[in-house]
Amino acid sequence: MPPKTAIQPTRSEDFPEWYQQVIKAADLAENSETRGCMVIKPWGYGIWEQIQQQLDQRFKRTGVQNAYFPLLIPLSYLEKEAEHAEGFATECAVVTHHRLEAHKDEETGKTKMIPTGELAEPYVIRPTSETIIGAAFSRWVQSYRDLPLLINQWANVMRWEMRPRLFLRTAEFLWQEGHTAHETKEEAVEETRMIHRLYEEFLRDNLAIPVIPGEKTENERFPGADMTLTVEAMVQDKKAIQAGTSHYLAQNFSKAQDISFTGREGKIEHAHTTSWGVSTRLIGTLIMAHSDDDGLVCPPRVATQQIVIIPVTPKADTRDAVLDACEALAETLRGHRFHNEPLRVHVDSRDIPGKKWEWVKKGAPIRIEIGPRDLESRKVCLQRRDQASNEKAFVDKEEFIQNVTDILQDIHDNLLSAATSFRDENIAECADLEAFHKHWEQDNPGWLLTPWAGSSDQEDVLSKEHKITVRCLPLDKQDEAEAPCLVTGEPTKARALWGRSY
Amino acid sequence: MPPKTAIQPTRSEDFPEWYQQVIKAADLAENSETRGCMVIKPWGYGIWEQIQQQLDQRFKRTGVQNAYFPLLIPLSYLEKEAEHAEGFATECAVVTHHRLEAHKDEETGKTKMIPTGELAEPYVIRPTSETIIGAAFSRWVQSYRDLPLLINQWANVMRWEMRPRLFLRTAEFLWQEGHTAHETKEEAVEETRMIHRLYEEFLRDNLAIPVIPGEKTENERFPGADMTLTVEAMVQDKKAIQAGTSHYLAQNFSKAQDISFTGREGKIEHAHTTSWGVSTRLIGTLIMAHSDDDGLVCPPRVATQQIVIIPVTPKADTRDAVLDACEALAETLRGHRFHNEPLRVHVDSRDIPGKKWEWVKKGAPIRIEIGPRDLESRKVCLQRRDQASNEKAFVDKEEFIQNVTDILQDIHDNLLSAATSFRDENIAECADLEAFHKHWEQDNPGWLLTPWAGSSDQEDVLSKEHKITVRCLPLDKQDEAEAPCLVTGEPTKARALWGRSY
Repeated sequence: MPPKTAIQPTRSEDFPEWYQQVIKAADLAENSETRGCMVIKPWGYGIWEQIQQQLDQRFKRTGVQNAYFPLLIPLSYLEKEAEHAEGFATECAVVTHHRLEAHKDEETGKTKMIPTGELAEPYVIRPTSETIIGAAFSRWVQSYRDLPLLINQWANVMRWEMRPRLFLRTAEFLWQEGHTAHETKEEAVEETRMIHRLYEEFLRDNLAIPVIPGEKTENERFPGADMTLTVEAMVQDKKAIQAGTSHYLAQNFSKAQDISFTGREGKIEHAHTTSWGVSTRLIGTLIMAHSDDDGLVCPPRVATQQIVIIPVTPKADTRDAVLDACEALAETLRGHRFHNEPLRVHVDSRDIPGKKWEWVKKGAPIRIEIGPRDLESRKVCLQRRDQASNEKAFVDKEEFIQNVTDILQDIHDNLLSAATSFRDENIAECADLEAFHKHWEQDNPGWLLTPWAGSSDQEDVLSKEHKITVRCLPLDKQDEAEAPCLVTGEPTKARALWGRSY
Repeated sequence: MPPKTAIQPTRSEDFPEWYQQVIKAADLAENSETRGCMVIKPWGYGIWEQIQQQLDQRFKRTGVQNAYFPLLIPLSYLEKEAEHAEGFATECAVVTHHRLEAHKDEETGKTKMIPTGELAEPYVIRPTSETIIGAAFSRWVQSYRDLPLLINQWANVMRWEMRPRLFLRTAEFLWQEGHTAHETKEEAVEETRMIHRLYEEFLRDNLAIPVIPGEKTENERFPGADMTLTVEAMVQDKKAIQAGTSHYLAQNFSKAQDISFTGREGKIEHAHTTSWGVSTRLIGTLIMAHSDDDGLVCPPRVATQQIVIIPVTPKADTRDAVLDACEALAETLRGHRFHNEPLRVHVDSRDIPGKKWEWVKKGAPIRIEIGPRDLESRKVCLQRRDQASNEKAFVDKEEFIQNVTDILQDIHDNLLSAATSFRDENIAECADLEAFHKHWEQDNPGWLLTPWAGSSDQEDVLSKEHKITVRCLPLDKQDEAEAPCLVTGEPTKARALWGRSY
């Protein structure tokens, strides 16, 4: 019998169900009665607050400014960019009325609210804001001197998902959407690439998730984009998660919405625009990337609380002294900074059973226990979430205080290195169509890297047959030694990365 | 002829139009094509980011945690609390469909998107979230040990306003809504009052706005509340703005939504709940409270940029040296902290005419000019937005750096003291119904404080006759010397504060 784990089922028994159970046990989020929409609970929302703040700082350093645009988009805006409208049409929540009227049901005596006040033009709740932000840009941009325009919005968006899954795919989600306009193609493409690199670095340095940066094939592009760059993460069932995207929109939206300006030569030109975003999906990604059969393992930089101190108070006469020592340690630690932010430290002084395991399941990176005996020995009992749940170290308190940020960094590094090894072990190269077909018959197959010069249709055939997609054309694999394409046989330097995905 | 002002019309000529023009000149926000909804531009959104961050810190210090709840509320939730539903029914945006279908118009050849996929149960976009957060609370609260539950949400909400006005009254606005549940009435009332004091302090200490804290009469209460506390600000046309409210909801919502728990005695009890909020309306309030005929005057703690440095570069050969000096000064200043936040400093090195006036209109608290001669003299030209727009002081650069945070605090103090004097000069006491009627015949009448023991109906009659409302029963005026009520003649210790409002 394997040892009993805090989460049932385990990852190997049933990965999707394990994921739901981790979210529940760690108290991160729950489903609501609004179809496909989640409630993000404080322990989960705290992670989002960290992600938001840390990404926001990175954006601002590149000159981006935040703004806010309307939630509701007039239908006529969507109609202007046909490909875009079509891409989102099947998942739009539509507002058609602006009042309710109370009607009393004669039989039950209950009041029912009935929509009334029909709108002449319905609105959709933004699934993304290219069209409404584009309308503002067309007012703001008059001259080349107004460019580049670098805007970001933190907002909720809505896509009516048929198969919702907490954090990964919900009808409403929180995200940031950057929208920029530039004078030239070169500048817009460079912005698209710069943000793509920013996402890669953020995932690596803040979430301990190694990603494969690459370009989407035409089949997988954002509706209306000329180029979509993506960062692809592998999670523990070897599926892929598209963790962030950055789009070069060329002049497609600026022509549909008249984002035009007087250029340096005095001629009217259309701007080149970009858009890029990451969402609360990042939380789903980090859960699936790092957690174990005892619950959430949260990367330290974005943990709601980085250190939880648990007073051990078996006797009434030493209780106050232990609690005081815990509070004093917490205050000392809060004076330290990790990546320039004060440490987030919580003292759990509740008098309830089972609280130690609660913090294991909730993924606090460091747990500290202090009991009566530790007061004299000036030691603390240190437990790290990147180690086995029963592993303990008794360390000198002063030494712990001195080393605390190194320990947090070490936990981060360990998570990143484990995720990197796992990913690298599960990407195989494959040059042969027969082996390709065979690969996808496995349970939880990893990713495949193949020489690729096929058409969109050929890609589509393989995708449908195996329920896979080209996750991306990895940026650093587009100038390999020539090899025959998997389907056409044509020699190619390019490589495609295939996988199943969420 | 009075001197020409940057804003036309002036405050005394046409206050509402002056307000629109300040928003435009300061580039804070603009109307969008979505009915009644605004675009908040970077210079305005920056103020909101400061408000958010500073309020959030205050909330968290009281034990409040952030979370996020669905945008869409099932109609059935609204129906549970009849008074609440009725209060918001006339201004609800209703989602009735979840897809669009493209239809090609045979005549024009254009594609039109038509709503389809009708929902069995429509949703409203939250006008406020008592009902949907209450549904979550009913799942979360089981025992008295789960209480108090202290939750806040930063979100967008929607109320279909018929006469929108930027920041003050828009169909969509941004806000925070706190929702708490408590074991006893006493605890819930104390939470309501504590947050009320927090709002008063925040407005005074962060926005330089003095408010009158008080209780709303029954006529003016939040739909579904037993007690509504408000902070009322007077702006420069002597109208009132309700800047924030805190509601004691008794067991009204907890009974409608079954937020019940096993109490200390083992019996099932219903929680006592509160809710409280402030919104982007605060930005409208600070504009109307402090700005002048040259544009925005922004209180320093929430200014998007607190200091703008303007290089004066008349000659090419000293241009680089001046720019370098400006950047160096900015870097030095950014190392200083004002109320524990690094100073926000911008260098405007654009080569365009009129940029000095732009920063007057945008309300930057401190403007610094540095020109070639200042390099040798080691002086800077200092201009403060709380002083006349042409007032300049040449001060020693090192001295300025030493004093910069004191200057910012002094600007704050001056704004607060001017607003306080203005308000106090414009609140009159009135004990006589004839004088009361006469008062409201004036242009821009101030507020009136009157002895009050009237009924809701009597209040209603006076309100309608003069287009006024009881802004509040000021907390510190409910135990005055007995005086006869304005309408009933009955002796009363209570006082009501009347005024016109936005």
